[in-house]
Amino acid sequence: MADPLKFYFDFISPYGYLASQLIDDLAAKHGRTVDWCPLLTGISVLKVMGLKGAADTPLKGPYARHDVPRLSRYLNIPFNRPEGPLKPLAPMRAFVWLKDKDPVAAVAFAKALFRTQWSEARNLSEPEDVVAFAVEQGLDGDELRAAIDDPAVKESLKNQVNAALEAGVFGVPTVSVDGELFWGVDRFPMIDDWLSRDGW
Amino acid sequence: MADPLKFYFDFISPYGYLASQLIDDLAAKHGRTVDWCPLLTGISVLKVMGLKGAADTPLKGPYARHDVPRLSRYLNIPFNRPEGPLKPLAPMRAFVWLKDKDPVAAVAFAKALFRTQWSEARNLSEPEDVVAFAVEQGLDGDELRAAIDDPAVKESLKNQVNAALEAGVFGVPTVSVDGELFWGVDRFPMIDDWLSRDGW
Repeated sequence: MADPLKFYFDFISPYGYLASQLIDDLAAKHGRTVDWCPLLTGISVLKVMGLKGAADTPLKGPYARHDVPRLSRYLNIPFNRPEGPLKPLAPMRAFVWLKDKDPVAAVAFAKALFRTQWSEARNLSEPEDVVAFAVEQGLDGDELRAAIDDPAVKESLKNQVNAALEAGVFGVPTVSVDGELFWGVDRFPMIDDWLSRDGW
Repeated sequence: MADPLKFYFDFISPYGYLASQLIDDLAAKHGRTVDWCPLLTGISVLKVMGLKGAADTPLKGPYARHDVPRLSRYLNIPFNRPEGPLKPLAPMRAFVWLKDKDPVAAVAFAKALFRTQWSEARNLSEPEDVVAFAVEQGLDGDELRAAIDDPAVKESLKNQVNAALEAGVFGVPTVSVDGELFWGVDRFPMIDDWLSRDGW
């Protein structure tokens, strides 16, 4: 059995959202599973790379704002941008906690959270928003609320993000195919080809 | 007759090189011609956007160094990275001068320069290197050498780069299809689809 693909994601990224709706099918087509791995792009972009985020970058920001809905139409994925700043810590800690307990449920949670945030324009940044959403998904709200503040969960997220950065991952979506990194949802056709031909 | 596609390029960009070998065929497939437009990414990235170049960015630099040869294999385009820093001013001024005189010859010059620099690993940055290369291409070396230092040519290049930035272009390759911008050679399949369906 081949190793799972690693899918690095961040809930605040619209490109990550588009990829999140495609990655499991792409992997399944090639008999692979997917290991969903958290990245906090604010940390990598700002602290490690010394850059501003794309949204705050002149020229690139306006381009991305136009590009994302266009790309969503190209990919036939519904898109509706939420208002206000997005913050990844509460939903990502919820994911990390859930992944440790039930990896399958964690992936379902992540995919649904992405879809709700980015196609229903519902900003799921604050702990109470994440908890309300999790309850709608049939999860235990009290447990999840406690997990978001749990130092062990915070530490685990930090360690997972550091591991991603050490593996050379700097943006989302990134897919690692047996250590080979592909950055960007526009690289999905290339990943498909890479898996078909076992690299080139 | 539909307007030409605008192809924004910079000789120092390996992604721009890969795109330069594909753009004319892509346009021709849809009955379009191509207007080759200079961009100096050093200016846009560093001065306007306030970023470092990709090659100098932690994590992104090493990724791109690995990604470019891999992408060249995917696209079946020969690739061999030249040594030393690349400087765009001399070859770009030569292009601007030639485009004003003979646009068809200018495109042939640009494509050949890209190919020579990036598949024969020949650094074509200094005026004397550009002149030697131009002579091999059957151009007049003395005229071209004078053009590289001509204030009017310098001014024209500056104006063309400013026009690109004002049109929202910030990186290479960028293709403008009737004002619709697509950044990155990985977007070529999307441009193909856009032209086939007249947008979406």
